[in-house]
Amino acid sequence: MPAPRQVFIAVIGVGGVGKCFLSQLSKLASRQSQDPSHPTYLSLILVSRSNKLLFSESYRPLSLSTWEADLDASKTPVLDPLAIAEYLSTAPEKVVVVDNTSSQDVAENYPIFLKKGISIVTPNKKAFSGTYDLWQDIFAVANNGQGTGGYVFHESSVGAGLPVISTLRELVETGDEVRRIEGVFSGTMSFLFNSFMPVGGGGGKFSEEVKKAKDLGYTEPDPRDDLNGLDVARKLTILARIAGLETQSPTSFPVQSLIPKELESCKSGDEFMQKLGQYDGDMEKLKKEAADEGKVVRFVGSIDVQKNDVKVGLEKFDVSHPIAALKGSDNIISFYTKRYGDNPLIIQGAGAGGDVTAMGVTGDLIKVLRLLR
Amino acid sequence: MPAPRQVFIAVIGVGGVGKCFLSQLSKLASRQSQDPSHPTYLSLILVSRSNKLLFSESYRPLSLSTWEADLDASKTPVLDPLAIAEYLSTAPEKVVVVDNTSSQDVAENYPIFLKKGISIVTPNKKAFSGTYDLWQDIFAVANNGQGTGGYVFHESSVGAGLPVISTLRELVETGDEVRRIEGVFSGTMSFLFNSFMPVGGGGGKFSEEVKKAKDLGYTEPDPRDDLNGLDVARKLTILARIAGLETQSPTSFPVQSLIPKELESCKSGDEFMQKLGQYDGDMEKLKKEAADEGKVVRFVGSIDVQKNDVKVGLEKFDVSHPIAALKGSDNIISFYTKRYGDNPLIIQGAGAGGDVTAMGVTGDLIKVLRLLR
Repeated sequence: MPAPRQVFIAVIGVGGVGKCFLSQLSKLASRQSQDPSHPTYLSLILVSRSNKLLFSESYRPLSLSTWEADLDASKTPVLDPLAIAEYLSTAPEKVVVVDNTSSQDVAENYPIFLKKGISIVTPNKKAFSGTYDLWQDIFAVANNGQGTGGYVFHESSVGAGLPVISTLRELVETGDEVRRIEGVFSGTMSFLFNSFMPVGGGGGKFSEEVKKAKDLGYTEPDPRDDLNGLDVARKLTILARIAGLETQSPTSFPVQSLIPKELESCKSGDEFMQKLGQYDGDMEKLKKEAADEGKVVRFVGSIDVQKNDVKVGLEKFDVSHPIAALKGSDNIISFYTKRYGDNPLIIQGAGAGGDVTAMGVTGDLIKVLRLLR
Repeated sequence: MPAPRQVFIAVIGVGGVGKCFLSQLSKLASRQSQDPSHPTYLSLILVSRSNKLLFSESYRPLSLSTWEADLDASKTPVLDPLAIAEYLSTAPEKVVVVDNTSSQDVAENYPIFLKKGISIVTPNKKAFSGTYDLWQDIFAVANNGQGTGGYVFHESSVGAGLPVISTLRELVETGDEVRRIEGVFSGTMSFLFNSFMPVGGGGGKFSEEVKKAKDLGYTEPDPRDDLNGLDVARKLTILARIAGLETQSPTSFPVQSLIPKELESCKSGDEFMQKLGQYDGDMEKLKKEAADEGKVVRFVGSIDVQKNDVKVGLEKFDVSHPIAALKGSDNIISFYTKRYGDNPLIIQGAGAGGDVTAMGVTGDLIKVLRLLR
């Protein structure tokens, strides 16, 4: 039995998902250290948040139980991604960066990390839904792309911990022909429309439901960041690219924003929320139209791979459709392929939340650890 | 860029799934050989069926386009698994065995293959649903278990190409608490009950529907092999073990057989089919009972992990339940876990068929190739 191999972990971003991830990491490291047959053991060597950073100059492991207090006590200002890459590249063992931010800046530096042999696991959508050039740069150098650098996995960038990206990649890699992908890709939009227009009737005014969703923590602090459709557009960009399309950016296809034109100039989220009620009429009209047809309204995304047609917006669904039957903030993603024929391969479940998002990240980390043996 | 590494492939069993697999393998090998950056290239060195075998004495690759005619022309009698393991163990490169049989004999030799560093990918349920000792032996020696031998993957042993096993393993490995697993695990039973009692009424007598399913090729040649529930029991045994239960065998928990007691002694499938109609009354009664409650009858399996309670049999479901809404021969599997809460993680789609089963095997092969780099 060879001696277990140490792998260094650097965690950038310790918000909701980051905290859940560190809790899962702590349990994973403890399970692995108790299993003498396990081929790796994990050492945390860097944790950073927006304003400060904690790192181990000598690469001796930081504590996975007191990292939060230790980070609070740290006087080290945050480093830019390049400086972090520099520090990690001199580490005496393999390194995995866990990017729990939604930072464009960190994302743009992935190729540099990867080139240095550093692997990346992340729920951050920015790198994979930004410019097509960045996408190509990342997979040109990644070991699980065309390169020999570090590995990169981003399961949680779509559908949180649901096996969406791994499933699509496997369909493609095993030679299936993916024809169409459709579904509800936003936990926020799912919750909002399941409340606004539940099957069987009911639901309040649209602005009231947005407020409720916001109060319950289902939206971003500024709900416009959900209602503009960009989050769903980013996810579709990622899936379209994996399916083989050269989708240039999340704004290169039609995306319906639920922000009324007149409110696009609102200076704050608060102002927007105060005025949204004035535009409830449009959504009420749509709701009534759908109800008259025996349908419900849902906010969905779809990719027609054959026609290279990607779109995001409101659609009506029969009340018997699986998309209409969704509950809570669940996502549902249907893959229509040559092998699966008329009945798609469907994946459904919570697509948002700290623990399930972190689970996708931890799962990716386990995949990298196997590959780094 | 390091030179690509040759990996040898040995295929045991070339029936429905085996043929589909070899077709997918041929395309995969061709794609990989056209990609100079790809780290492996694949060489077929052995193909066998029940009565004969084709192998390359010098380990020079067999043809992936003419293997079928070459195997027909071969005069080499089939070797037992031990002799095959012996031959493969002297190969100058890493070897992956693809077991497309449902043979108990091949399955029982997995630990020997694995010990010799040979990896295994398979849809064969026998090794993972046989004795608990065999299960332990396999994962004690497998590299993705506690050992340092070959790798073993068996995604297609449950739900064909659907990502059922990989998802359950990830839930467990990332530290989620799997509480309950339930679903429709048999394409045959799905088709049979979706026809016997469709939502909205209709459907013929049970024996007529069994005959129809048999004529359409949805059942085993002898339908008793489906109706006895053992296929579903084997799948549940596998999932229960991955979830952490020490389920001893597929007959160590309650399994409802749909073979009437009086027909258990039938000498042939034909005799059984002729007499089954005499027992339609019981199923009609159940169907009426369910209809009166606004429900439908389905053949399902469930695992209550906390109570260590595994069972297989008929249950009634509300017509609005996702299990009632299944179409064709689709499977549906719901994972109830601590992280996912009340709304389970659900995977749904075709759970039988040559191409989708082979896809799970090809996907597993790709995983092994990554790990063998």
